[in-house]
Amino acid sequence: MIGRRLVNGVESSAISVDDRGLQYGDGIFETMSAQDGRVRNFERHMERLAEGGRRLGIPVPDPRLVAEECARALAGLGAGSVKLTLTRGPGPRSYRPPAEPAVTRIVVSSAPKPRNDPEDGIVVRLCETPLGLNPRLAGIKHLNRLEQVMACAEWSDPAIAEGLMSAVDGRIVCATAANVFLVKGGRLLTPAIRDCGVAGVMRGLVLEAARELGIVAEVVDVRIDDLGAADEVFLTNAITGVRPVGEILGMRRYAAPGDATRALLERTSRAGA
Amino acid sequence: MIGRRLVNGVESSAISVDDRGLQYGDGIFETMSAQDGRVRNFERHMERLAEGGRRLGIPVPDPRLVAEECARALAGLGAGSVKLTLTRGPGPRSYRPPAEPAVTRIVVSSAPKPRNDPEDGIVVRLCETPLGLNPRLAGIKHLNRLEQVMACAEWSDPAIAEGLMSAVDGRIVCATAANVFLVKGGRLLTPAIRDCGVAGVMRGLVLEAARELGIVAEVVDVRIDDLGAADEVFLTNAITGVRPVGEILGMRRYAAPGDATRALLERTSRAGA
Repeated sequence: MIGRRLVNGVESSAISVDDRGLQYGDGIFETMSAQDGRVRNFERHMERLAEGGRRLGIPVPDPRLVAEECARALAGLGAGSVKLTLTRGPGPRSYRPPAEPAVTRIVVSSAPKPRNDPEDGIVVRLCETPLGLNPRLAGIKHLNRLEQVMACAEWSDPAIAEGLMSAVDGRIVCATAANVFLVKGGRLLTPAIRDCGVAGVMRGLVLEAARELGIVAEVVDVRIDDLGAADEVFLTNAITGVRPVGEILGMRRYAAPGDATRALLERTSRAGA
Repeated sequence: MIGRRLVNGVESSAISVDDRGLQYGDGIFETMSAQDGRVRNFERHMERLAEGGRRLGIPVPDPRLVAEECARALAGLGAGSVKLTLTRGPGPRSYRPPAEPAVTRIVVSSAPKPRNDPEDGIVVRLCETPLGLNPRLAGIKHLNRLEQVMACAEWSDPAIAEGLMSAVDGRIVCATAANVFLVKGGRLLTPAIRDCGVAGVMRGLVLEAARELGIVAEVVDVRIDDLGAADEVFLTNAITGVRPVGEILGMRRYAAPGDATRALLERTSRAGA
C-alpha cells in the first residue's frame, strides 16, 4: 500500500494556499525511518525539531501527539519512512510572522525504498551549486531547500547516488541530503555545521558511536584536498544510514567500506529504538 | 469583498501537501499592483517571472493565461494587488526536480491596503538577520524567504515601516520587502543585486526614470556609512511604490521627501500600465 497523509491529525492531502510553508518556506521538517511501525531515533528527531522551532519561533507540538500520528500514518505499512512537516500555518500576505500562529502539522508516510547493499560503495559527484552562509539558519532542517533542489538538478545519471556541496567559500559541507564523514589515519572528521548545512540526526549518532568505539572524532573545516587525501569517506542520513563512498567522480576511488566505516555502520545499525 | 483564489485556473484555496512549493520552497512568485482591474507593469513582472523560471528550470505559463486569471481574480475588486505563485508542482519525496514537472499556478487577489501619504517619510530600522550569499539564487523572487521572515520577526512596533537588511559581509542590500535607494550629491545609488536580494520591478522602473530625468544613477556596494552620509533615502516596492525614508532608527533623520525622491516618485507614479 502507499503511504498515508495526515494534516493536523485528519486524513487529508490538502493545505491552504495561504499557508506560510508554501508562501515563504516558513517551517521545518523531519524525515524519519520506521521499522515495525515505530519511528527510529524518535527522541532525537523531536529534539532537533524543538531546536528548529525555538530558533524560528514556531511552537512545536507535544512529541506524544507526533508519535501517535506517526503510528497512525504507518498503520498497515510497518516499515518505511515518515516525514513530519511543521509550518507557521496560514496567514495574510506579509513576511511578518503572526503573533499567535496556527501551526500546520503534516505527517506523510512512505513505503520503504529499495536500498543499496551497504557493502557497495556509492558513486558521488561534486556539485557546482554553492551553499549560502547564514548562521541564523544553519543546522536546522527548514523548508528553504532551493539550493539542494538546484544541486540535484545538476545530474540525471542514476548511477550517481549523491552530490557533495560546498559553501560559497569552498569548504565541503555536506551532500544534498546527507552529512559527510572522512576517515584519515584512523581519525574521523566531519565538517562543522556553523553557517550552512543541516546537523543530521544520523551525524549525531555516528559521532557518539565513534566515541563508544574509541575512534577519535573531530568537527573541522573540510577542503576538497582533504577528500582526496582521505582513507575512507561515507555519507549519513536518517533513512539510508551510513553509506560508504566508493568513488568521487573525476577525483578518486576508495576501497569501500573501510574498517572505520564498517565499524560505525554496524554500530549505528544496531542503535536507535 | 475579499480577494479570490485560483489554483491552476479553478477557484480553490487548496494545494497538495506533496507540492514542491511547500516541501522545498521550490517556486517563484510575483506580487503585483492593480488598478481599474488591470495589473500595473504586467510585462515587467512577467519578464522577471520568466527569468526566475529559466534559472530554476520551472516552465512558466503564457503571460496571456496569467493576465486572464489575474483579471478573473480581480473581478469585483478593481484595485488592490495580485500575487502569482508558480511552483514546480507535486512530486515524490526527493530534492531532484521531476523531469516533466506539472507546475502549480496560484493567483490570489487582495483588496488595497491603507497607504501612508507618500509625503510622509517612513521610519525604518536596521535588521540583525543577515542575508546569505548565493549568486545562483540572487535577483529572482523565489519562495525561500525565511531570512525575510526572521528579519520581520525582529520588531513589532507598528510605527516602524520596514527593516534594512545587510549581507553577511556587511553590505546594505535591501529592505525585507523592498529595494533601497540613496541620493548623495545629486547622484542616485542603489545596491548591486549580484549574490543576494531581489531585483525589484519598481527598482528597475526607478533606474529608468532616473535616466529619463537626467539623474546620474549607479549600482554600487552600499555600506552603513553611506546611509549616514546620504542626502535622501527611499524604498521601492511594486505595491507601495517609492517611499521616502524619514528616519533610520538610532542613526539619522532625513528631511523627506528630498527633491530627487519627489521627482522619481512622481515619475514612477505616472508610468506603467
